[in-house]
Amino acid sequence: MKMIRNAIGRMIPYEIDGKKLKPFGGAHEDHGGGRKVGPPIRAIADYKTKLRSSLDEAIDACNLKDGMTVSFHHHLRNGDYLGNMVMDRIAKRGLKDIVVAPSALFPVHEPMVKHIENGVISHIEGSMNGSLGRACSLGKMSKTCVLRSHGGRYRAIQDGDLHIDATFIAAPVADPHGNANGRSGPSACGVLGYSVADSLYADSVVVVTDNLVPFPNYPWIIRGGNVDHVCQVERLGDPEKIVSGTTRITRSPARLLIAEYAARVIRDAGIMDEPDFSFQAGAGGISLAFLKYMAEIMREKGVKANFARGGSTKFMVDMLEEDLIEYILDLQCFDIPSVESVRRNPRHIESDPFTSYNYHAKGNLATRAKAAVLGATEIDLDFNVNVNTHSDGWLLHGIGGFADVCDSSCTIITVPLLRGRVASIVDSVTTVSSPGEMIDILVTEQGIAVNPRREDLIENLKGSDLPLKSIEELRRMAVNIAGRAEKPQYEDRIVALIEYRDGTVIDTVRQLKV
Amino acid sequence: MKMIRNAIGRMIPYEIDGKKLKPFGGAHEDHGGGRKVGPPIRAIADYKTKLRSSLDEAIDACNLKDGMTVSFHHHLRNGDYLGNMVMDRIAKRGLKDIVVAPSALFPVHEPMVKHIENGVISHIEGSMNGSLGRACSLGKMSKTCVLRSHGGRYRAIQDGDLHIDATFIAAPVADPHGNANGRSGPSACGVLGYSVADSLYADSVVVVTDNLVPFPNYPWIIRGGNVDHVCQVERLGDPEKIVSGTTRITRSPARLLIAEYAARVIRDAGIMDEPDFSFQAGAGGISLAFLKYMAEIMREKGVKANFARGGSTKFMVDMLEEDLIEYILDLQCFDIPSVESVRRNPRHIESDPFTSYNYHAKGNLATRAKAAVLGATEIDLDFNVNVNTHSDGWLLHGIGGFADVCDSSCTIITVPLLRGRVASIVDSVTTVSSPGEMIDILVTEQGIAVNPRREDLIENLKGSDLPLKSIEELRRMAVNIAGRAEKPQYEDRIVALIEYRDGTVIDTVRQLKV
Repeated sequence: MKMIRNAIGRMIPYEIDGKKLKPFGGAHEDHGGGRKVGPPIRAIADYKTKLRSSLDEAIDACNLKDGMTVSFHHHLRNGDYLGNMVMDRIAKRGLKDIVVAPSALFPVHEPMVKHIENGVISHIEGSMNGSLGRACSLGKMSKTCVLRSHGGRYRAIQDGDLHIDATFIAAPVADPHGNANGRSGPSACGVLGYSVADSLYADSVVVVTDNLVPFPNYPWIIRGGNVDHVCQVERLGDPEKIVSGTTRITRSPARLLIAEYAARVIRDAGIMDEPDFSFQAGAGGISLAFLKYMAEIMREKGVKANFARGGSTKFMVDMLEEDLIEYILDLQCFDIPSVESVRRNPRHIESDPFTSYNYHAKGNLATRAKAAVLGATEIDLDFNVNVNTHSDGWLLHGIGGFADVCDSSCTIITVPLLRGRVASIVDSVTTVSSPGEMIDILVTEQGIAVNPRREDLIENLKGSDLPLKSIEELRRMAVNIAGRAEKPQYEDRIVALIEYRDGTVIDTVRQLKV
Repeated sequence: MKMIRNAIGRMIPYEIDGKKLKPFGGAHEDHGGGRKVGPPIRAIADYKTKLRSSLDEAIDACNLKDGMTVSFHHHLRNGDYLGNMVMDRIAKRGLKDIVVAPSALFPVHEPMVKHIENGVISHIEGSMNGSLGRACSLGKMSKTCVLRSHGGRYRAIQDGDLHIDATFIAAPVADPHGNANGRSGPSACGVLGYSVADSLYADSVVVVTDNLVPFPNYPWIIRGGNVDHVCQVERLGDPEKIVSGTTRITRSPARLLIAEYAARVIRDAGIMDEPDFSFQAGAGGISLAFLKYMAEIMREKGVKANFARGGSTKFMVDMLEEDLIEYILDLQCFDIPSVESVRRNPRHIESDPFTSYNYHAKGNLATRAKAAVLGATEIDLDFNVNVNTHSDGWLLHGIGGFADVCDSSCTIITVPLLRGRVASIVDSVTTVSSPGEMIDILVTEQGIAVNPRREDLIENLKGSDLPLKSIEELRRMAVNIAGRAEKPQYEDRIVALIEYRDGTVIDTVRQLKV
C-alpha cells in the first residue's frame, strides 16, 4: 500500500477502497474550494401525504438497494431503539453491504455486530462506541470505517463526500408534514440538531415518531419541506437511557482537583476578564465538577459568560438560571433538567453542527468560545490528543465534537495522570484525534502544562499559584509510577480512518493482533 | 421569434436572451428532477473577522464585475435605504449590466431608473412596483426582466436558475458573526425570511445593519455561518415607511361587502368545520376587513383556526391573542403591532419562502391552508388572474406570494366589479399571473362565482343566502356598466417574463406603444 506522511508525521494511504485520500496538512491549512453538493429537486405535487402506515412501509418507500448508505442521529443515545429496528428490517429484506453513517452509535447498537458478520453492513462511517468499535478493531467490517467529528460529519455530507441514500430520524415529536423536534413526548431528548445535515442532503428523509401531533409542530429544527415520509412506531427508545434523571459529579478527589485546576487556570490566565467571555464544557464527571468550580469563581469575581456551549446538564442550566450565563448554545441535552430548559427557556438555544462546528462554513460557534474543557484517553509530548483508541489499540470511542471544540481560543485537556495502571501522557499517542497545535493546556491532578506555542498564556499565568509544569515533567511522573505501557500488536490492515474536520486524514487505526 | 403555445394558450418564446424557456404545462405538472445548486465551499480559517469598516469596503470585498447579479430583500418596503445606497455605489464604481434580483422593489427605488438608463443595470429579476415596472413597460431595460413569485424566487435560486453573485441583507439587528433578524432596532421590520435563500446560495453575503449587537444575536434567521461580511451604516431605512403605525381597514361600502362575503363563503362552504381549519390573508384594505368579519364569525361559531398565514397585521395579531388562531405562520410584518408580536409571542412564527412557498420542496405551508383570500387587478372567464399589469398594459406590480398562496384548498379572489371605470372581470386577462385552475371562488360586491371545476364547493354552498352567480353573469354586469376597455397597443418586444412558481413561463409582458 502506497503511503504518504501527513503534516504530523502519521503515514496515510494514498487511497483506500478505491477512494483517494487527502493527508492532513495542518489545522487551518484547508481553505475550501469547489461547491457543496446539491440534494435532489422534488416537487410538492408529489407530497400530498407523507404518512406511511408503518416503519416497514416507510423503508420500502426509500427503495434501498445493496451498497446504499443509511443514517441515524444519536440524540437518544443508549436508549435508542430506532437504529436496531431499521437495521433488523433491512437485514430481513436481504440487503447487503449497507453503509451505516450515524452521528454516533452506542452499546445499545451491539445487535448491529451480527449484521456486520452477515455482510448486511459493510462498514460504518461516523462514530462507534463499545462493541461496534471492537468489531472494527477485529477487522470484521469488509470495508474501511471512517470516523468523523460532528462538524466533520456535517462537512462531509454537505460537501458530497458522504452521500446518504436514506436517513431515519427518530423524532420525539413530529407532525404529518414532518416538522420535528426533540422537546416533548415519551422519548424527549431536547435538542435534535445532529440530524439536520441528513434532513437537508439525504435522498430520502424518513421522520419516525412515537408522538405525532397536529400541524404545525414548532420549533421545526427538522423542517417538513425536507421530509419525504412520516411514520409512527410504538416507542422510539427507553426514556431512562435517553437522558439521565440526574448527571453525577465525580467523587474522586483526583478528578475534583483536575476540575478545580481547570477552572482556576481559566481565571488566572485572564480569560474571564475578556468582555465576551464564554466557554464550552461537556457532561463527564470532571466537566460537571468543572462547572461547579466555574460557578463559584464567576460568582466570586462577578463575571458573567455571554454564552456557554453544552452538551447541557443541570449544572449548566443552573448557571443559566442564576444568570452566570447569558445563553446556552446547545447541541445535546444530557439530563432531564436540560431537556426542560431547552423547552421553556428562550435563552437555551438549540444549535446544529453547521452553526456550531462545520469547518467548511463562514465561521462557527465553537471557535468563538474563549475556553473549552475536554477529556481524552491519551495526550503526547507534542500535545496530540487521542480520544478514539486506548493505549492497547482498541477502537472504543467516537470523536464526538472533540476536533471541532478544540478550535476554541483556549482548549484545555483534563486527564488524570494515570488511567487504571496506564499513563495518560505518552511519548506519542496511539491515535491522533486532534493535533497538538489545537491544544493549549493540559490539566492533571499532578500539575498543569501549557503548550509552549502559547507564550501568551504562559506569560499570563506567571505568578499564579497553580502547579505549572512542562508536559515532559508530567510524562516522567506518570512513567515513574506506571512504567511504559506495552505497545499493541497490529495486523497490516487499516480498519478505520480518522478524518479531520476539514476532510483530510489525520491518522489511521489498524486491525489488532489478538 | 419562434414561439410555442403553453398549457393555458399563451404564446411563449422558445428562448430569450440566449436562454431556453420552459412553457407552463399545468399547475402541478412539474415533478422536479435534477439536483439543487451547490453554493461555494468556504473555510472558517478565512473568517477570523467579518467586520468591514464601511459599506464601500464590504462592496469592494465582493469583487463585483460587469454583468454580475446583486440582490436585496424587501422587508423594509417603501422605507428601504439600502437598495439605493448599494446601487449608487455600484454605479460610482463604473460597473455595467448589473442584474438586480430583489425579492421586491418599491416606489422608493425609483432612483434605480437612472441606473437602468445609464446601463448600470441591465434588467431586474424578481419583482417590480411602480416606476421600475413602468420603465420595464417602456422597454428601458437592455434585457428581459423575469417576474417571479416569492416561492418561485426561492426555487430559482435553489435550483441554480438565478445565480446571485452578491447579496446585501438589510439587517435591523445583527452581531459580528452575521447572525441577523428583523425584530428590533430603529429599522425593525419583524420577519426577515425573504433573504434566507440569498444567504444560503449567494457567492458573497453581506449583512448590513444599523444595530450591531454582541454575539450571539438570536434568533438567527440569517445565520452567521453563511455570512461573509458585516458592516454598519447610519440608517437602513425610514421607520415610518418600513411598517405602518396602523393599518387601516377599508371604508368603502362595496369593499366592506366583498370582505364580508369572503368570510361568509368560507363559513357557508363548510371550510370552518374542518378540524384543521386555517387560512391566509394579507394586508390590503379588503383583507383587513375580511379578518374583522372572520373574527366575528369564528367567535360566533366557537371556531379556532390552527394557523393563519400573514403578512401579519394588528387585526391578525388580535385574533392570535384572543385565541381565535393558534399560530401565525408569517413571512412579512405590515405594522408595528405585528413586529411586536413576532418579537414576543412564541406562537407568532417567523417563516421563510422555502418553508412557506417553495414548489420544489417536499410540501410547503401555503398548500396546507384551507382558505386564502387574495386581491387582483383582473380575473377572466377562465378564472385566470392578473396581479401584474393593469388593463392598459402597464406593468405596475410584482407577483408577491400570489401564485404560491393560490395553492390553498380554497383560493378566493376578492375584487370590486369595477376599478375606476374599468371592469375587473374580463374576457381574457392582460397577463396571467396564476392559472384559473388554481382559483376556486371569485367574490365581488355584486355576487360570488365559484369555479365550475369545484363541484364540491358548489354543492356545499347550495342553500347559502350568498348571491351566487356565474362568472359570465358577473362579467356581463361589469360590461353593462363600464363597457369593454380598449386593448393596449404593444410593440413586438417582450420586456418581461411571468415565471410560474415551478420555473415554467406562464405569460409574457410586451413593451407598450406610447
